[in-house]
Amino acid sequence: MRKLNDLQTPYLAVDLDIFQRNLETMQSVRSGSSLRPHVKAFKSTDIAGILKQSGYSGFCCATIKELEGLVASGLGDDLLLANETLNASRLRSLVDHGAQVTVAVDSTETIDAAKEGGIRNVLLDVNVGLPRCGCDLKDVENLSTYARRKGLNILGVMGYEGHLMFTPDRADRKQGVAKAMQVLKEAHSIAGGDIISAGGTGTFDLNELATEIQAGSFLFMDTRYSTVGLPFEESLTIVSTIISIERDQSRAVCDAGVKSFATDYGKPKLKNGVIEFCSDEHSTIVPTEPRSETAFKVGDLIRLRVPHVDPTIAKHPRLVCLQEGYIRGDWKVDLRGW
Amino acid sequence: MRKLNDLQTPYLAVDLDIFQRNLETMQSVRSGSSLRPHVKAFKSTDIAGILKQSGYSGFCCATIKELEGLVASGLGDDLLLANETLNASRLRSLVDHGAQVTVAVDSTETIDAAKEGGIRNVLLDVNVGLPRCGCDLKDVENLSTYARRKGLNILGVMGYEGHLMFTPDRADRKQGVAKAMQVLKEAHSIAGGDIISAGGTGTFDLNELATEIQAGSFLFMDTRYSTVGLPFEESLTIVSTIISIERDQSRAVCDAGVKSFATDYGKPKLKNGVIEFCSDEHSTIVPTEPRSETAFKVGDLIRLRVPHVDPTIAKHPRLVCLQEGYIRGDWKVDLRGW
Repeated sequence: MRKLNDLQTPYLAVDLDIFQRNLETMQSVRSGSSLRPHVKAFKSTDIAGILKQSGYSGFCCATIKELEGLVASGLGDDLLLANETLNASRLRSLVDHGAQVTVAVDSTETIDAAKEGGIRNVLLDVNVGLPRCGCDLKDVENLSTYARRKGLNILGVMGYEGHLMFTPDRADRKQGVAKAMQVLKEAHSIAGGDIISAGGTGTFDLNELATEIQAGSFLFMDTRYSTVGLPFEESLTIVSTIISIERDQSRAVCDAGVKSFATDYGKPKLKNGVIEFCSDEHSTIVPTEPRSETAFKVGDLIRLRVPHVDPTIAKHPRLVCLQEGYIRGDWKVDLRGW
Repeated sequence: MRKLNDLQTPYLAVDLDIFQRNLETMQSVRSGSSLRPHVKAFKSTDIAGILKQSGYSGFCCATIKELEGLVASGLGDDLLLANETLNASRLRSLVDHGAQVTVAVDSTETIDAAKEGGIRNVLLDVNVGLPRCGCDLKDVENLSTYARRKGLNILGVMGYEGHLMFTPDRADRKQGVAKAMQVLKEAHSIAGGDIISAGGTGTFDLNELATEIQAGSFLFMDTRYSTVGLPFEESLTIVSTIISIERDQSRAVCDAGVKSFATDYGKPKLKNGVIEFCSDEHSTIVPTEPRSETAFKVGDLIRLRVPHVDPTIAKHPRLVCLQEGYIRGDWKVDLRGW
């Protein structure tokens, strides 16, 4: 059976036991249709298949590529493109392949694209405080009328309170979510429909309005979430090799750099050291105790904690599955690109 | 003939005329063996092939994957792994395929790996000021002796003055390079050999010691280099679509985020706006003149300038080639991963 050091570093490793616990924790709070797992977090049909076996059959996507991959893998029964698109021809191709796709819209242009692509069902995407897509509450009525006039069904509304995911204090976070969801509730009262799609890992059990939560990171957990007090654990690490040590042991260099992890949420964290700076294919580490038993040696395998899971996974072709120190296969990351 | 808006955004586009000018500028200063193009910048055998046609037959790599890809494409006559590795078995496989590979070493462990991998020729990698691999000058003699005792040929020394690439003032940069190269010169006097491999785009015409310069970014140019006064122009942009506009036009959102560009050198730059924040698949833009003729509209194609080329290219499967507003094919980015 293969062990961690049998593979070329750097690579991403998932601790299967932690992954499974995270999944079970989510299931205990949000099972079945009350969660719409967000495929953008993991970009893997293998993982989407595991989620389907765990009772989640509706998926949320950020790109048409993710939608297409799920459809090709037989996971296209209930898909939501939780993002704006103008690419009518690729929507049309999905519809022609029998996919059941609902599309988020926030403008006449995106409504036109959905219509032209043969889409039947849309969600009105509403800005609930994160300045990133979503129409203004004032425009919900006009856009709803416009969409219905085009013959589209409005299944409901969507509004992502992404600006609140990392609010450290739970009570503050809850209050923020309530305020954001008040906007979405009003939008819903105007637009109608059965679905209120919102939320993410940071608000999965705080959002009382949403009929479905869009979460994906909970399976792996960004280190950034560690300040938020969520019941999920970090399951993902970057496995890297120490390839160089400074003479006085004041620094060690590993073979994982910004080509193998995202730094938009900060640098990765590790045991017994702090990353001083990152290059393309290296990170320079200052050891916490350079002269101790825990000092780094050339050839050591280290594991870096992942600040931001989604864009880190998107840099790798696969996730290596670990259990009790051994490699138990891998999951392909097959939905990368656009 | 296809135009920019015929492709799914986001994608990377290379302006062929600028790319060609950058190449010719480099050739006028460093032709033939005085430049060893760094494949890590572009990770593309198509581009390596163009460089070979332009008289550059020796290449520099950061990963074994890059070496393997060049060898498989018939570009393996003179390769340098300008990085430390402990993976003897993959070195062995390259040697068995007839590749001519020189490997950088900075420790007994990396020397042992080179020997075990059947490598004949090494460069002693020396720390010249950037705290990222390279042995201390004090260790050059012992490591040289160790390598020779193992039967390896020391072809020379390598030392990357990466800490000086972005020193804004040319005279300061030149002075810094001279100081760093003094270390490498001493190392060379101890280790021997014909090669002194050093430098990068920021110091390509300032490094007077190096027999060969390791540069790759000059073909595309990071926006970060714009402060340094180099004779190269930016040839690479991220093509993206505006997918949402706020009601009062105070913000626009495009479909390119941290999954399509690196942010370790800052956020991308664009005409008529400033990026406020980046998400996985979006950037939120504050327009410079929201009410003017240059205001963004849903469906507009925009082009983002690239802060850091190398890790941005590594996120994409191909580079789209543009000339006079039309698409003239593409170059595959086939050396990604490890």
